Amino acid sequence: MLIHNVYFWLKDEVTPSQKTDFEKGIKDFLDSVDEVQKYQIGIPASTPDRDVVDHSFGVSMFVWFNNVEDHNIYQVHPAHDKFVKRFKDLWAKVQVLDSEMF
Amino acid sequence: MLIHNVYFWLKDEVTPSQKTDFEKGIKDFLDSVDEVQKYQIGIPASTPDRDVVDHSFGVSMFVWFNNVEDHNIYQVHPAHDKFVKRFKDLWAKVQVLDSEMF
Repeated sequence: MLIHNVYFWLKDEVTPSQKTDFEKGIKDFLDSVDEVQKYQIGIPASTPDRDVVDHSFGVSMFVWFNNVEDHNIYQVHPAHDKFVKRFKDLWAKVQVLDSEMF
Repeated sequence: MLIHNVYFWLKDEVTPSQKTDFEKGIKDFLDSVDEVQKYQIGIPASTPDRDVVDHSFGVSMFVWFNNVEDHNIYQVHPAHDKFVKRFKDLWAKVQVLDSEMF
């Protein structure tokens, strides 16, 4: 099993309404891809500030796939392309970390 | 629900045996804390390299808590302190991102 983990930092000028659209857009996108086993979406938690903790991201996305092949199908899925084109102008930075679970 | 997500980058000199000890140490630690609802541990997945993907970490850890209060109890749990003291010399960098899921 694989976790495809994406952190999105949003541009300062992104409005609450645009952020809400983006969050809904993530769900619509992920719901449309058969290879996605499950997903969770989040915003920074109100945990205490510590040197190692980064609360600066805008939205986090955790997507589970059965294997790398399914992840690769998702990456070239038309819905992925549509999602990126629709929302990329909102993003200041994107960090992706893919983990193989054991 | 909250995901406490930690990425560990290990020092170059860390041996495979030390890495195995560390991975087992994470499980022993998390198994000992009642507030942990579930967890997953991973290593970089063999997904394709892309500009936004960071495959350079050593070990990833995803820990679910019911709420911030439970996370805060975990942070000051004696097992947390013991875990950090035992393994911190292996770490080149630690990145923590805490998400409140919706």
